[in-house]
Amino acid sequence: MARIHNFSAGPAVLPEEVLLEAARDLPDYQGKGLSVMEMSHRSAAFGDIMAQAEADLRQLADIPEDYALLFLQGGAHTQFSMVPMNLVRNGKADFVLTGHWAQKAMDEAGRFLDARAVASSEGTGYDRIPDLKGLNIRPEADYVHICENNTIFGTQFHTLPDTGGVPLVGDLSSDIFSRPLDVRQYGLIYAGTQKNLGIAGLTLVIVRKDLVREDLPGTVPLMLGYHTHLKAGSRYNTPPTFSIYMTGLVARWLLSGGGLAGAAQRNERKARLLYETLDESPLFKARVQEDSRSLMNVVFSTGDQALDERFVKGAEARGLSGLKGYRTVGGMRASLYNALPYDSVVALRDYIKEFEGEHPC
Amino acid sequence: MARIHNFSAGPAVLPEEVLLEAARDLPDYQGKGLSVMEMSHRSAAFGDIMAQAEADLRQLADIPEDYALLFLQGGAHTQFSMVPMNLVRNGKADFVLTGHWAQKAMDEAGRFLDARAVASSEGTGYDRIPDLKGLNIRPEADYVHICENNTIFGTQFHTLPDTGGVPLVGDLSSDIFSRPLDVRQYGLIYAGTQKNLGIAGLTLVIVRKDLVREDLPGTVPLMLGYHTHLKAGSRYNTPPTFSIYMTGLVARWLLSGGGLAGAAQRNERKARLLYETLDESPLFKARVQEDSRSLMNVVFSTGDQALDERFVKGAEARGLSGLKGYRTVGGMRASLYNALPYDSVVALRDYIKEFEGEHPC
Repeated sequence: MARIHNFSAGPAVLPEEVLLEAARDLPDYQGKGLSVMEMSHRSAAFGDIMAQAEADLRQLADIPEDYALLFLQGGAHTQFSMVPMNLVRNGKADFVLTGHWAQKAMDEAGRFLDARAVASSEGTGYDRIPDLKGLNIRPEADYVHICENNTIFGTQFHTLPDTGGVPLVGDLSSDIFSRPLDVRQYGLIYAGTQKNLGIAGLTLVIVRKDLVREDLPGTVPLMLGYHTHLKAGSRYNTPPTFSIYMTGLVARWLLSGGGLAGAAQRNERKARLLYETLDESPLFKARVQEDSRSLMNVVFSTGDQALDERFVKGAEARGLSGLKGYRTVGGMRASLYNALPYDSVVALRDYIKEFEGEHPC
Repeated sequence: MARIHNFSAGPAVLPEEVLLEAARDLPDYQGKGLSVMEMSHRSAAFGDIMAQAEADLRQLADIPEDYALLFLQGGAHTQFSMVPMNLVRNGKADFVLTGHWAQKAMDEAGRFLDARAVASSEGTGYDRIPDLKGLNIRPEADYVHICENNTIFGTQFHTLPDTGGVPLVGDLSSDIFSRPLDVRQYGLIYAGTQKNLGIAGLTLVIVRKDLVREDLPGTVPLMLGYHTHLKAGSRYNTPPTFSIYMTGLVARWLLSGGGLAGAAQRNERKARLLYETLDESPLFKARVQEDSRSLMNVVFSTGDQALDERFVKGAEARGLSGLKGYRTVGGMRASLYNALPYDSVVALRDYIKEFEGEHPC
């Protein structure tokens, strides 16, 4: 099977072993005479798949018992609303702004409470995580929100802010389970699975159970209450069964590869190779300050739009796919999620070198 | 491949051809070097898949240009909230109650407007569609809501109510595209795809565009506004890409089998065989009045709980799966969705006859 090098920002590359297993079991799951897709979500067979996926995800991040793991739909965008609708008590929330997604989370929260920025790196074009010392967090805030990894600008939190006891909420859509995760540092974590943990259509929410309110205002849609799904074990309605199955396969693949420590090791190695190549390059430049660089999304450019476009076009021709940068940033973006093989980064490095040779500064 | 006879109420049986095609293309879609699951939702390749799925669905039901087709998440349950949140103008909606799901739709709508029943068959245990003549629909109602097919009680609308110009909203989760559909009779149709049109994780909404408001109150979450998805061509955020692909495969399968007229012919033939068997049976009895019977979900029983349980157990042993009735109704339920082969109904008929022989009245 000739695979392209898939640097897509998401949905993204999956482990080849996982794809082959899914393909093999697709028409007939373990000799049961039907596909996973054809199983009732209330059947024993699917119940086992879901329970195993949950157990494996819990094991990977050592998720404590007092945290619920919910399998939801609607992506991070739906969480932008659900988080404030569910966590609001005093009607205030503080945000660290690191770009597009953090801003969208704040804008949407602003429909439901007083949403305020306590730090922002907008002034420097979001090229870093803002200084997290002495944040003016309101002690009565219902939560502090961060977007842990910023796919568009290529930054990532490598330490978390001290919130002084205010629950920290993290959008981990683009770096969940790419490195060890201390769930206890968060009150609530949400993430789509389509980058590091599976396919589109499934959103994971990891939430400290005491934050899940049952006494929500009557105007909160039933489906947007965490308690609805918590009480029903994520089967209040039909969950995205096949997406859950795929996430289970990826979780098992991660476990067999040394868990999150193993993933971090592989991801650091990939990112190091690419950043070193860029830092040595006379032509290309990484966009982000060194201490804020994302291990997941490496954003870079030649500084010349026409040259960037030529680079992306040449990359496609060589089977290096998905390197075009986000439309508002331009340049290139290489996403190096869990399932991207090291060889893909080597291939990209080689092409960068080759392109440099053809375009001397 | 030894397939079970899958009578599951949903997620449900898929066409074997579709499963085999999906399995073949899973690791490598048409030689492109990646899976559909691994494609960016904004890539040209996935754009083609989505456009083709939409075109095929539109062709199947001859969906007029002034109706939008949206690919959403969250299931019918999310629509229970979205419909009133989006369609509310005068703050009133009328409901025909035919059981559990219609009632849930009304209860949820009651959070957002004055929701009132204009007809109900509760008095006869939801064994029929209520009389639709002379419904006392409020002319100023924002919409009239029906659940076209009732999976739990096994009833189905075979004619639609005259709403006197008030938009009709239909939950078609369990009979969409199982027979010809005149979209113009509805203002809005919603349906999960996991019964007749694909797998779990995708919700179709077909809505007359003039009903889609942009001026929603600020308290409506952005993701719950139809206009958000309409403006963005269902790619405001990452859609459930693989579920859309699967629905595209099922749509093409339906087209190749004579479209919705062909589906109706096959579905009627299956339902006729089963109802005739039950009507002739000295032991089993169909639950629903003849003119209200569902072609999708055939609910029946011996009237003796212990005997019903023995029947279901014996069925499982013979590879006839998913026949246990809904917990509040008991007895048996055979779901005969689009992809269920005629042979599965023949196998069920044979087992019914065999069981009758072993249990003379």
